[in-house]
Amino acid sequence: MRALYLDGELALRDDCPDPQPAAGESLVRVRLAGICGTDLELIRGYMAYRGVLGHEFVGEVVASADQRLIGRRVAGEINAGCGRCDFCNNGLGRHCPDRTVLGILGRDGAFAEYLSLPDSNLTPLPDAIPDELAVFTEPIAAAYEIFEQTKIGRNEKIAVLGDGRLGAIVALVLKAEGYDPIVGGHHATKLRRLAALGLRTELEAKLAPGFDIVVDCTGAAEGFNRAATLVRPRGQVILKSTAAAAATMNLAPIVVNEITVVGSRCGRFAPALAALEGGRVDPRLLIDATFPLADGLAAVKAATDPSNFKVLLKIS
Amino acid sequence: MRALYLDGELALRDDCPDPQPAAGESLVRVRLAGICGTDLELIRGYMAYRGVLGHEFVGEVVASADQRLIGRRVAGEINAGCGRCDFCNNGLGRHCPDRTVLGILGRDGAFAEYLSLPDSNLTPLPDAIPDELAVFTEPIAAAYEIFEQTKIGRNEKIAVLGDGRLGAIVALVLKAEGYDPIVGGHHATKLRRLAALGLRTELEAKLAPGFDIVVDCTGAAEGFNRAATLVRPRGQVILKSTAAAAATMNLAPIVVNEITVVGSRCGRFAPALAALEGGRVDPRLLIDATFPLADGLAAVKAATDPSNFKVLLKIS
Repeated sequence: MRALYLDGELALRDDCPDPQPAAGESLVRVRLAGICGTDLELIRGYMAYRGVLGHEFVGEVVASADQRLIGRRVAGEINAGCGRCDFCNNGLGRHCPDRTVLGILGRDGAFAEYLSLPDSNLTPLPDAIPDELAVFTEPIAAAYEIFEQTKIGRNEKIAVLGDGRLGAIVALVLKAEGYDPIVGGHHATKLRRLAALGLRTELEAKLAPGFDIVVDCTGAAEGFNRAATLVRPRGQVILKSTAAAAATMNLAPIVVNEITVVGSRCGRFAPALAALEGGRVDPRLLIDATFPLADGLAAVKAATDPSNFKVLLKIS
Repeated sequence: MRALYLDGELALRDDCPDPQPAAGESLVRVRLAGICGTDLELIRGYMAYRGVLGHEFVGEVVASADQRLIGRRVAGEINAGCGRCDFCNNGLGRHCPDRTVLGILGRDGAFAEYLSLPDSNLTPLPDAIPDELAVFTEPIAAAYEIFEQTKIGRNEKIAVLGDGRLGAIVALVLKAEGYDPIVGGHHATKLRRLAALGLRTELEAKLAPGFDIVVDCTGAAEGFNRAATLVRPRGQVILKSTAAAAATMNLAPIVVNEITVVGSRCGRFAPALAALEGGRVDPRLLIDATFPLADGLAAVKAATDPSNFKVLLKIS
């Protein structure tokens, strides 16, 4: 099959073997996939991943032992746990030490004609959620993960650092849940686009300290130090981006100001799908371009352009 | 008066001016003071502090507008807030942006014949708490701060990193509150002394990952990276030591494993005094040496010796 394959360099290959679903797994034909900041970090060497890239997708089940799934349009959770450990038994398969992660760790990903995932990872999509919305399920679920991990008071002052795709989606989800975050970024053009989505925005350098919550979506290691500066004493810094590189960070302000830092990654799909189906979150205005898989390398190049939010791959 | 004065270098001076208590402040004759890791960091340049060093003390009130305090033996909270801001109004004067901190920030400290503090910072000591116990009130209160900031489940596996004075006191407090922490350190001799206090101990390199909670008391920036390695996914790292230097840290594991990092500094004195009075915490076996103030420089030198836990200054 055709796929975007990462092996040190990213290449479009027509000779990738079709996925061979294991017992309890379905074969999914990918319809639409999204390029994420993590994909770009993986290309830069994060996780030393080799394989088919991609983890945000909508697809259609073409083969499964579960007859109810066959032919269904689905979204898919990307972490596949062992199903037996304490994490898996507690609904935290995304922290299973033996997990594979679609397009990230030990499992070929979604920038391909086909992928395989455990049946239990797949959620049939209601017709009310078109592909262009459903392809955002994974990053929206990651944003909802914040609410699973921590309490945010109704009137708390929230800053979202980073005017990229991650910051945009986190801010849209916070807004959908009744908060009024301000997005701080470096790109006036992107901030204007976010303002058009109803979000409050400000040039990052103009933000003043005193936020109850600062969500770091910069994708850059220095975002942490900036967040630590902007949050009030006893406030929370939520880290949503996996900065690939180690960086020089001084933790003394974290101790002196008794900041709580919450690392936050993937989330359950249910709240994200409910928000999409109910129309509470609609990030379609973030879509800058949609490329066919044949132009996958150009699509990835477009995704690295900081003036773009979201680039999609139309695969079938 | 005589005092240990920090001005780039630490010096014993006989010409330090007596403190001039402001309105609402008492003058306290210092009886006994403790040397803390933070003092050693201040000497190395942390906070760029200039003034009389020292913040752990027991003293006797010799002048006060509050007649009930005069002649009383007291312990004293070290943060003096403005008394008017939101933090002060919420009982969090230790986070007041305009605070002074005894021997740390804008207020001469306790390695001196006299100090001054707001009356409201002073707690008269019951006779049941002798000076050698009461001098530990401040670090014990800092350990109790953990419980004010976060919940720890009854059966959670806890590691305390660092076999110094801070790690010892944090572990003793956790033990007093019904937990069973294991102290990981580099010094077999000190670990044996901690074992004699009833604590579980292990050479740090032998600790295996999987702790629910890791408390970093190493006083070294690399302690954070080690804590992040030892804690389980979705676990908590509690940072108790203010590492003066910035260090290279990779936050990706914090995000991927959804770790919560809790910076934790000073605490209220009430729970510490209750634990001391009730005999639940007794760190007197940690006292290695007591020097007169005249030998203050030798005392500080002894406190830098990693084979020692606690060095005291007997002042009056």
